[in-house]
Amino acid sequence: MNLVLFEAGELDAPLPAADPRAQHILKVLRRAPGDSFVAGIVDGPLGQATLLEAGEMLRLAFSPTREPPPLPPITLLVGLPRPQTARDLLRDATTLGVECIQFVATERADPNYAASTLWSSGEWRRHVIAGAAQACDTRLPRVSWTHTLASALAECAGPRAGAGGGGMRLALDNYEASAPLSRALGGAGSSGRLVLAFGPERGWGAADRAALRAAGFALCSLGERVLRLETAVTAALALARAREE
Amino acid sequence: MNLVLFEAGELDAPLPAADPRAQHILKVLRRAPGDSFVAGIVDGPLGQATLLEAGEMLRLAFSPTREPPPLPPITLLVGLPRPQTARDLLRDATTLGVECIQFVATERADPNYAASTLWSSGEWRRHVIAGAAQACDTRLPRVSWTHTLASALAECAGPRAGAGGGGMRLALDNYEASAPLSRALGGAGSSGRLVLAFGPERGWGAADRAALRAAGFALCSLGERVLRLETAVTAALALARAREE
Repeated sequence: MNLVLFEAGELDAPLPAADPRAQHILKVLRRAPGDSFVAGIVDGPLGQATLLEAGEMLRLAFSPTREPPPLPPITLLVGLPRPQTARDLLRDATTLGVECIQFVATERADPNYAASTLWSSGEWRRHVIAGAAQACDTRLPRVSWTHTLASALAECAGPRAGAGGGGMRLALDNYEASAPLSRALGGAGSSGRLVLAFGPERGWGAADRAALRAAGFALCSLGERVLRLETAVTAALALARAREE
Repeated sequence: MNLVLFEAGELDAPLPAADPRAQHILKVLRRAPGDSFVAGIVDGPLGQATLLEAGEMLRLAFSPTREPPPLPPITLLVGLPRPQTARDLLRDATTLGVECIQFVATERADPNYAASTLWSSGEWRRHVIAGAAQACDTRLPRVSWTHTLASALAECAGPRAGAGGGGMRLALDNYEASAPLSRALGGAGSSGRLVLAFGPERGWGAADRAALRAAGFALCSLGERVLRLETAVTAALALARAREE
């Protein structure tokens, strides 16, 4: 935890000592009353928090210092994976920095995965917050898991696409890729809006590929070696972020 | 498991049905006697295995078809991390493809980590084999965990460096980097021998940085966002591999 993140308004009331953040402040950061640490408000400013009182409840005062920069204009479309894969992916993609993560139903995605308690209990948000805290950022990506690939593509491409429309569209594919992702992304400085699509663990089906191509996606590869889905997402985001450097 | 890997000589005897690979062959691949599947011999050829008999023991026949290409000429030096971080890193770095992974003692690495049963029990090799099977490769990186940073650097740089000597040397650093890793790696086609060094979770100390610089390492960054060690390794390897494309 490189940053202790609080929800807006949460610091108006004392923080129970059993809260994992309270434990982190006391035991890892070893802060005593009067000490400060780096903190932030979810989707709000970064700043300093001061521990005023410690006991069964922690009283904290927060002083905002700056707004973090906007998230990179990257949307991920991901075929609904196993919940454990989704947990790692939510955390790591948030750390690397994306604006939006849409988990979508595809031909070969197991529809039962959408019924996981990861989604219904709101647990997914915990992994996103952990990813943002790791990155020292307060901004969270938008996350959804109710779209089909077709409805997500219609939203990307349709007349109401708004900020989500346009830009580069690349889908990772181990079988029918026409170029390496690094080449498709272009050289340094070619930043701009980007949608990256990943099949679920079992990969894309023929109808998925047809829908992606019809929506203007080029199929790209990350090389001959077959990567786990979460490794492929991290590798692709590393290449996409390097364009800005 | 995209490839079922066997140790050299292991197929001379029947495989117990309780072996995880036997379970994978029968339950995931759903092979029956007479059926074939993709298999390989560790550090040897890829080929087809045929299930001859299934029961309490599986009898298999292996036909080699081809040798996999050599591993990319990349060495990782990694400050000894927590065992759970090392597990993920061993698997994912092997999947992405490296020749050598040296876990080294650094100023801020916890020396207790070298005493983990991950190393003493040989468990580490299981994660490397899982990473190679994921990549559909039979070749395993060399792995060590007994060097200090100083002794590893002396081996990289010394007169006995052999195939490990020379090439590009880059260390990832969140604090004193002089260039983004992508720029330091150079453009497409700039392949060749590469040593990538990563501090442990707590980062490099001042003496570590001095030793790295004296050994010809340039300090590079993966951007403003602070990544977990295992995410940084995957991101850096994605950029290094893209040079070849």
